[in-house]
Amino acid sequence: MRAKVHVFLKPGVLDVQGKAVESALHGLGWPQVDGVRVGKTIEFDLKDATDKAAAEAQVKDMCEKLLANTVIESYRIEVA
Amino acid sequence: MRAKVHVFLKPGVLDVQGKAVESALHGLGWPQVDGVRVGKTIEFDLKDATDKAAAEAQVKDMCEKLLANTVIESYRIEVA
Repeated sequence: MRAKVHVFLKPGVLDVQGKAVESALHGLGWPQVDGVRVGKTIEFDLKDATDKAAAEAQVKDMCEKLLANTVIESYRIEVA
Repeated sequence: MRAKVHVFLKPGVLDVQGKAVESALHGLGWPQVDGVRVGKTIEFDLKDATDKAAAEAQVKDMCEKLLANTVIESYRIEVA
């Protein structure tokens, strides 16, 4: 099974990378760009996984322990 | 309109961040994790945009000029 994890800063947390991208885009001639947020996407295979619910629970555990800093980041899991 | 850009390293390009995540996950007790790839997701609003095709063309231009390094990275655009 292939898992995808999307990690984003929580709303209200200042996204400095997003601000940098936003001002760069404004400088390049796109002033209509607004509210830029930059996140991470982590994709991986789960070998020998057959049960979707069990795989999701495993990936959730990985997020809590390593992939996301849950103090400032939220995450979304897709398993297929 | 809201645009989402997913940026990933092209297949064959060594993903050092992905390798680091993979060995960390192995060390934490998930040896079944394989083929980890880490990418970026950039989300933003396009103010005053009404035409979806025009917005997509604009975002493609932004990717080519700033958001992706097309020598080693590929990108996927979603406009909604």
